[in-house]
Amino acid sequence: MGDPRPGEVLLPFDPGARADGSVSFIGTIRSPWGPDDCPKNIGRARETGKAAHIELIEGYGGGLLGLAIGQPVILLYWMDRSRRDIVVQRPGHADGPRGVFALRSPARPNPVAMATVRITSLDPEAGRIGIDAIDVFDGTPLIDLKPWLETVDLPPAV
Amino acid sequence: MGDPRPGEVLLPFDPGARADGSVSFIGTIRSPWGPDDCPKNIGRARETGKAAHIELIEGYGGGLLGLAIGQPVILLYWMDRSRRDIVVQRPGHADGPRGVFALRSPARPNPVAMATVRITSLDPEAGRIGIDAIDVFDGTPLIDLKPWLETVDLPPAV
Repeated sequence: MGDPRPGEVLLPFDPGARADGSVSFIGTIRSPWGPDDCPKNIGRARETGKAAHIELIEGYGGGLLGLAIGQPVILLYWMDRSRRDIVVQRPGHADGPRGVFALRSPARPNPVAMATVRITSLDPEAGRIGIDAIDVFDGTPLIDLKPWLETVDLPPAV
Repeated sequence: MGDPRPGEVLLPFDPGARADGSVSFIGTIRSPWGPDDCPKNIGRARETGKAAHIELIEGYGGGLLGLAIGQPVILLYWMDRSRRDIVVQRPGHADGPRGVFALRSPARPNPVAMATVRITSLDPEAGRIGIDAIDVFDGTPLIDLKPWLETVDLPPAV
């Protein structure tokens, strides 16, 4: 992502230059998508019928023990091609400015994005996990994979 | 978390020493809980009826523009008191070893935890967000806040 648009508001500092902790990539998301054809959201990615998979870095395959094919999981991945300092944004789909915490924009103080997907295959030895679909570029770095749990991940009842 | 238990498997490296990217804290979660009385999960935290809130670091209040009271949001927070290299774990609640990616354990390669909560109050000027409940220690660092979206955050239909 490039320069701020008119009406956008910048932080007085760059969060990318304030290192309170470090992330370590655990693998790579392999998708059919590049900058020219990546679906705008995961719903559209699913509609294409095109699957994706994850390649874990060597050493992490054992971490899959207990996961099952068909299970929903949450992927956390690192969207580090975007600016981190745009606190008020003007997304094309909205009719006015929006705060970064009201958006799922990749341009955010910490570029951690998430997708909830379903496991379609599991190969712990090769560190390979098939998933139903995803709306990210091929090669996007993965930082976590968690089981999706109804008791934790659904919003509380009103 | 301390030393590995019998049967646990360590990575041959420490992910905490592999910095592929940096996180920057955006605020602090203020909860009623410390190490002695913290509920074991968010369901139990809700049952206590005790609320919590977030204090954003100066500069981030504008990022709340467009959020509404009552809206569900996802908090990402940083659990950096745990080891990052235990790839197969033996949690007390399970009958055998489990891979880290099959668990929501705070001991994981990247200590990013998540909670889906409901906004109960909003003060952008003070950078203060009330939430219904949470199961973390008072003072836990926050790294992101995202709107929960049904179209994105529910698992795909089978």
